[in-house]
Amino acid sequence: MTRMIVAGAQLGAIQKADNRESVVERMIELMNEAAAKGATMIVYPELALTTFFPRWYMPDRNEVDSWFEHEMPNRATQPLFERARDLAMAMTFGYAELTPDGHHFNTSILTNRKGEIVGKYRKVHLPGHDEYDTGRAFQHLEKRYFEPGDLGFRVWRNEGVIMGMAICNDRRWPETFRCMGLQGVELVTIGYNTPSVNSQMSAEGLEKRLFHSDLSLQAGAYQNATFVVGVAKAGVEDGHPLMGGSIIVDPDGFVLARAATEEDELIVAECDFEKCAFGKSTIFDFQRHRRIEHYGRITSQTGAIVEV
Amino acid sequence: MTRMIVAGAQLGAIQKADNRESVVERMIELMNEAAAKGATMIVYPELALTTFFPRWYMPDRNEVDSWFEHEMPNRATQPLFERARDLAMAMTFGYAELTPDGHHFNTSILTNRKGEIVGKYRKVHLPGHDEYDTGRAFQHLEKRYFEPGDLGFRVWRNEGVIMGMAICNDRRWPETFRCMGLQGVELVTIGYNTPSVNSQMSAEGLEKRLFHSDLSLQAGAYQNATFVVGVAKAGVEDGHPLMGGSIIVDPDGFVLARAATEEDELIVAECDFEKCAFGKSTIFDFQRHRRIEHYGRITSQTGAIVEV
Repeated sequence: MTRMIVAGAQLGAIQKADNRESVVERMIELMNEAAAKGATMIVYPELALTTFFPRWYMPDRNEVDSWFEHEMPNRATQPLFERARDLAMAMTFGYAELTPDGHHFNTSILTNRKGEIVGKYRKVHLPGHDEYDTGRAFQHLEKRYFEPGDLGFRVWRNEGVIMGMAICNDRRWPETFRCMGLQGVELVTIGYNTPSVNSQMSAEGLEKRLFHSDLSLQAGAYQNATFVVGVAKAGVEDGHPLMGGSIIVDPDGFVLARAATEEDELIVAECDFEKCAFGKSTIFDFQRHRRIEHYGRITSQTGAIVEV
Repeated sequence: MTRMIVAGAQLGAIQKADNRESVVERMIELMNEAAAKGATMIVYPELALTTFFPRWYMPDRNEVDSWFEHEMPNRATQPLFERARDLAMAMTFGYAELTPDGHHFNTSILTNRKGEIVGKYRKVHLPGHDEYDTGRAFQHLEKRYFEPGDLGFRVWRNEGVIMGMAICNDRRWPETFRCMGLQGVELVTIGYNTPSVNSQMSAEGLEKRLFHSDLSLQAGAYQNATFVVGVAKAGVEDGHPLMGGSIIVDPDGFVLARAATEEDELIVAECDFEKCAFGKSTIFDFQRHRRIEHYGRITSQTGAIVEV
């Protein structure tokens, strides 16, 4: 298979009071629409099943854990998996994962068209902070509620296409895309929850933040000759605005489809995965052009070191 | 010093028949204009002194060597260094370097406001090919005429600003910017000679190629919270068109100034280097957010390895 109609299923706001079952109903509605449009792969956002809870400071660990899933699929998501199998729809979505041995991750899974889970990713680049921060307009406590992902950046051949996953802030890091590019990735899926305003610089509003999201997704696509699908959870959650801007990007870095709203909204594009070959075999033929002997700092050094 | 007016000195076409002295005259004219606009730093393109000779297949090594400089400054460029010193103008420009022991590099140098060379860079990512290629609309023999740079990606504190250099195709590689970002870079200067058409895909014309240049420069700036100046040699050289599109980009990835022509043209922007601090201390605080334990492939593996 070299062509696939891929859908990005942007979700509008999910309030704190909304239960998972009601969200899954919305996800199934978008899946039905995707199937009607011929899609065989659907991409949902990060932490798709609940409100973006890391904005809330919760000293009680039990309250925190109420936002996590103990297994996948589970009772609330079973109807989504069943519908996906019925429609022969591959999918990926994000959720908060609590492992049997008590670890917390910001996770996404990938399924094939039989509804079987074939891949799992745990978010590597956690943004934000781990203690209550009085200097912010609102909290972003991902570093408190999650551990950094321990699975690295893997890819899977799913329905004939080499797919990889990343989550939200991962998209701003070129390392994310390169690690998958070095495994021949053809489709990178990235869900996100991105506040419409920078909590540490209120002047940085929606327009600038959409630009940064586009820039990161487009550069990652171009520089690795891969399709990229970025999908938002958007809208105003209990007074807190999240940006939309879901896009599907081709291996040249061009936007094929873009969400127009901050609501539940489906975008689709027919992806011809043969288009990845030109970039991968010419200007981004890594084997011919990369010079790893000069990249040492990228893996030997975490932070910036100013020596001059 | 935290502010500096930086000039990008785009050069129009240099024909094969044009000598270095005539090019240096044009460079001095642009420098005079830069000084009149208050600039204290000027950025010239890659291989600024001659036509873009790697488009010509030359079996005779002596003919090839005639395009190289044996020392810097030399007789032809001495007036440029003298004018720079007189105007107290820091500068960077590219040239083909032939070392005393016979090595060939695509090089750029950085000077301070006294006209002293304080930094040297040799292009790491050589594009193109090393033998005559009948499948191309025109040749791009950088891999034939140059060795890959052996100096890595260094930075220098020059006139109070942490500066680094890259050349042309280097800008498409996020590794280039990251290696300098990890040294706290605040200003990355990149000269280029970029054909207006892809020699291996004629449908990829000017608009797409300008987009890719912008995308790479803007992503590199944003993702490392640094100013970036990209400067073209442009125009039609002996029938071969080179694109313009010189830009100055701020640490948010936004374009501050853009060349409008494919001729000799100066662009200027006042760069407030304190603007680098916000990104470097928040979303791109590398020490807090990078996870090098998952980046191993970037330095352990040159080419893509498809294992799925």
